[in-house]
Amino acid sequence: MSRLPEPGRARDLAAVAAAAYGAPAAVNVVPAPGTQILLPRIASLVPPGRAFVLGPTYQEHARAAAIAGHEVAEVRSFERLAEADLAVLVNPNNPDGRVVSRVQLLELAAKQRAKGGLLVVDEAFMDVGPRSESLAGDVDLGGIVVLRSFGKFFGLAGIRLGFAIAHASVAERLEEELGPWSVAVPALEYGIKALSDVAWQAEMRETLAKAAGRLDQAFARAGVVTTGGTSLFRHVDIHDAADLFRALGRQGILVRSFADRPTQLRCGVPGTEVEWRRLDVALGDWAQDRRPG
Amino acid sequence: MSRLPEPGRARDLAAVAAAAYGAPAAVNVVPAPGTQILLPRIASLVPPGRAFVLGPTYQEHARAAAIAGHEVAEVRSFERLAEADLAVLVNPNNPDGRVVSRVQLLELAAKQRAKGGLLVVDEAFMDVGPRSESLAGDVDLGGIVVLRSFGKFFGLAGIRLGFAIAHASVAERLEEELGPWSVAVPALEYGIKALSDVAWQAEMRETLAKAAGRLDQAFARAGVVTTGGTSLFRHVDIHDAADLFRALGRQGILVRSFADRPTQLRCGVPGTEVEWRRLDVALGDWAQDRRPG
Repeated sequence: MSRLPEPGRARDLAAVAAAAYGAPAAVNVVPAPGTQILLPRIASLVPPGRAFVLGPTYQEHARAAAIAGHEVAEVRSFERLAEADLAVLVNPNNPDGRVVSRVQLLELAAKQRAKGGLLVVDEAFMDVGPRSESLAGDVDLGGIVVLRSFGKFFGLAGIRLGFAIAHASVAERLEEELGPWSVAVPALEYGIKALSDVAWQAEMRETLAKAAGRLDQAFARAGVVTTGGTSLFRHVDIHDAADLFRALGRQGILVRSFADRPTQLRCGVPGTEVEWRRLDVALGDWAQDRRPG
Repeated sequence: MSRLPEPGRARDLAAVAAAAYGAPAAVNVVPAPGTQILLPRIASLVPPGRAFVLGPTYQEHARAAAIAGHEVAEVRSFERLAEADLAVLVNPNNPDGRVVSRVQLLELAAKQRAKGGLLVVDEAFMDVGPRSESLAGDVDLGGIVVLRSFGKFFGLAGIRLGFAIAHASVAERLEEELGPWSVAVPALEYGIKALSDVAWQAEMRETLAKAAGRLDQAFARAGVVTTGGTSLFRHVDIHDAADLFRALGRQGILVRSFADRPTQLRCGVPGTEVEWRRLDVALGDWAQDRRPG
């Protein structure tokens, strides 16, 4: 790690990522130190105007659009996105797992393109989603930027690696802004290795799907029906979510709550059998004392 | 590395870096995945106008200023920088090691501040430079951004870590653009460890200074007087630089040449005794056949 990352190695990573994500070619793929750092740059691809983010979702998209000078609003219907200069959605969505179909997205992209707008699809969780709905293969049409995250699916969030997939002219512009060497050597090397290993990916998808099913069952035994999510997290919407949040917290189990949506929780998948057992016990204890809504 | 970098750890790193670089406080320090990625963002801190880069120097500053929409020119005299909205210099300079004094820089910074301009001082090599000339401690005055690179001095360019040091309000703005988690876990941890280790740094400065002296002697034995540089690289300006470049290249020794300055070379310090010996032999062979200029 004593030398700068080799630009050729970043090109190798782009090629491997293009194949893994179904992008047209390596020139469409921009490796970055996480997708986060790309958000304001992508939001700046269109002049300051109206940015709509399909919510509720990951908060950083609205923040990034505001940094880029847009007037930002969270909209609750997919159809309204077409009114914006910058339309952003997370697909599958975090935290509820909602999926918008590729057909619908292509229609929206055509509208954006026609008026010089942009559609940003954050596919951070598409590795465990319905990949046939990915827009990664369609970016050559223009007016589309797709984001893919490496760390979530591969369990290496700490190395910081993510990708923008876009028309080659847009990819080039984003690369110019990042400059050479934006991705560190560990991220380049882990990225190339992991994204090439299709067998490992298939196996991991199966493992995660099974774990997600097991998590749904754990909640079901406590009388809670999970309402969506992905294989990396499950979504819960119940009247006494705050009470469940506190009960799990007392047992040292942290789930995600949402200040503006007090009935919802997002729960990650336990990593070890000890953690599974602890969750089962905590959910069981809570269910025993639960008051009806 | 399965989890996102802890924001608290980035704050720890900012505090350690502030102490190491002599910045007023942690709030003045923005850790980033290399300084490169910061350049267009810093250039965007002033509205598009006139950017002057004191040259010849590292090319990326001019490129970044152009991305930010400035009309960019390379100027050859320090005094001319005051005419620009965005004034950029590398101090000590790469490749010739030229140092501009802190007193002169503070005068320039005052002029920039008075007209709403900005002075950017890239101190990528200040770890091996005259640290009393650093502007890191003066950023609270405003109108100044100092850049520090981690990888060069600490020999870890591959992990991607650099810092912007600026007035707290500017630091906050840059941090917002980078977003949370911009620095990877390995960079955070190496950075905190290495920047805290003042004894190691002092020792390394001495080691590098000795090695630079040895490199000057190696060139001197071949009849070449080095003309500046830093302890991390030496600068050569001779009529037959192109010939020396090729002679070293034939022996597998890569030095840096400059397309627009054919008489100049930049030579890094060899890392091992085998490399020293190879350089000595190659320089000796070249000197024997050298034609007078």
